[in-house]
Amino acid sequence: MRAPRPSPEELVEQLLAGDRRALARTLTVLENDAPAAARCMQRLHAHTGRAYILGVTGPPGTGKSTLVNELAKVYRQRDNRVGIVAIDPTSPFTGGAILGDRIRMRDLAGDDGIFIRSMATRGSLGGLARATADVARALDAAGFDLIVVETVGAGQSEVEIARTADTVLVVEAPGLGDEVQAIKAGILEIADVLVVNKADRDGVKHTVRALRAMLDLGVAPRTIVHHGQWMPAVSAPESANAWSPPIVETVATQGTGVGKLVEAIERHRAHLAESGEGARRKRMRIAAELETLLRESLMDRLMQQVGRDGLDGIVERVVAREIDLYAAARLLTGE
Amino acid sequence: MRAPRPSPEELVEQLLAGDRRALARTLTVLENDAPAAARCMQRLHAHTGRAYILGVTGPPGTGKSTLVNELAKVYRQRDNRVGIVAIDPTSPFTGGAILGDRIRMRDLAGDDGIFIRSMATRGSLGGLARATADVARALDAAGFDLIVVETVGAGQSEVEIARTADTVLVVEAPGLGDEVQAIKAGILEIADVLVVNKADRDGVKHTVRALRAMLDLGVAPRTIVHHGQWMPAVSAPESANAWSPPIVETVATQGTGVGKLVEAIERHRAHLAESGEGARRKRMRIAAELETLLRESLMDRLMQQVGRDGLDGIVERVVAREIDLYAAARLLTGE
Repeated sequence: MRAPRPSPEELVEQLLAGDRRALARTLTVLENDAPAAARCMQRLHAHTGRAYILGVTGPPGTGKSTLVNELAKVYRQRDNRVGIVAIDPTSPFTGGAILGDRIRMRDLAGDDGIFIRSMATRGSLGGLARATADVARALDAAGFDLIVVETVGAGQSEVEIARTADTVLVVEAPGLGDEVQAIKAGILEIADVLVVNKADRDGVKHTVRALRAMLDLGVAPRTIVHHGQWMPAVSAPESANAWSPPIVETVATQGTGVGKLVEAIERHRAHLAESGEGARRKRMRIAAELETLLRESLMDRLMQQVGRDGLDGIVERVVAREIDLYAAARLLTGE
Repeated sequence: MRAPRPSPEELVEQLLAGDRRALARTLTVLENDAPAAARCMQRLHAHTGRAYILGVTGPPGTGKSTLVNELAKVYRQRDNRVGIVAIDPTSPFTGGAILGDRIRMRDLAGDDGIFIRSMATRGSLGGLARATADVARALDAAGFDLIVVETVGAGQSEVEIARTADTVLVVEAPGLGDEVQAIKAGILEIADVLVVNKADRDGVKHTVRALRAMLDLGVAPRTIVHHGQWMPAVSAPESANAWSPPIVETVATQGTGVGKLVEAIERHRAHLAESGEGARRKRMRIAAELETLLRESLMDRLMQQVGRDGLDGIVERVVAREIDLYAAARLLTGE
């Protein structure tokens, strides 16, 4: 006989008591079942707010996963419990996680102070952003000190997810080609710390120079300030707020530069606390998460009211060119 | 004295009369002004539905833009008017389009039968998807026969946009590295035609073989069928519906293979018409666009009701840990 399925409340209780399997099952609920997720989060909420969230993003092929592994090892040596949430660039249809667990587990398996969760980019974008935030909060409540949220930053959805972190690492690498260069310019703006990984490759000097030049060209960091040699000469309303994104070179496969990277992360963490920027970001993060949740729940509610058949009927009228899409939307929302 | 700004209705009238400048201004309205976009689309709707929409996606660095240029040239030689909508991987903050027009215009400038529009991935994701669909429809109404929607397919948002096309090209290239390989598996599923560009590079045979193997492993195409040598042996409920994505090798910078690619596209186009799959996709596209529009308008309406201050007040209560996010959402939606 199988044991009865635990309720969301029971799962959360077990999770808070340190049950690793309950944590895994809770995360599955958070990913797949919005109503049950609401019940979980209601119970978890009081236990959140302790963890430090590190967002890691950057173009494909920069070695982010290896770098995250190395960072996790350093933080483990410092007795931090580390949760890793990897948003994998996988199928919108099958939802299978291709990277992630398989590769990472080799180095980090068997350590109770590490928890790794791969999330596939299935379902709606809003759903993914909501689930990622909930998963991070659940890890927080489960007592993980550092939570790394890793995304491939070529799409805006991934950038959106990464920028809800306390500190954002943007990982680059030499020799990625023109199109990737263009992507860089977009994600540079959310970087608190820039990492040039694979720094043993040809062209690393060129890459670092190019990144500095882009910063000089006015690609604005999240806190617009004039401070340090790489920053544009824009007005600095509050110099106490000053933070200029450092550029750190690493070779993650050899562990080179990872210590310096951790130092840079910790400097930013201290800056967040001292300047009040940390509290501001926390507020922004909650507002963004609330908006995501609202979008999802408004749509869910409408679909329940209208029903699949109602929607299909309206679609047929648009197909038949009786009404346009905006008129169809007005019909459905009763405006 | 400056002329008064034309109304959305006036702009559309000029657009339908063939005024290129009015078209450009309409597209700007569609991108930036949702209420005016609704007025434009109401007028444009009756004139849409003629164009053939080609989605082009794939990882960064595969040479998609060059390939799209070459395809446009071939279709121009066949007296098709070609509209290109390029979704650029740019800044979520500044919204500047970095690639696109500048590079393309060299070859295609001065041809009235070509219209190129770069769209930055700014604003909300739903907003971008909505605007992209509207821009494609406006080009359709303006008499463009082929509309190419080009995205960088590393993020789900881009995949979502591409898959609303009639025919989806997925562009790959040899030697992109492991992470990009993982991305491939996800976007393979939406491919009607697979292109291995940069086929003069080392490793092209390996790339083609890997793509075939992935297809064999059961990465399902949009129409699941058993047909042709690259397809998995799954059940084929309707063999009339059969389509197996061909793999075409190109070197876009030299125009090599582009003729074969056009043949493959045209074969798929004929298949869509003969099998009824084209009508099914059109219906799916309209349903997806309606959903996007509904999400945006529901959220806009709620924000108008609640107001910025109302939202901020609720955020403060979450920050203070009085209520959790789900409770906050329920408060705001009055559930």
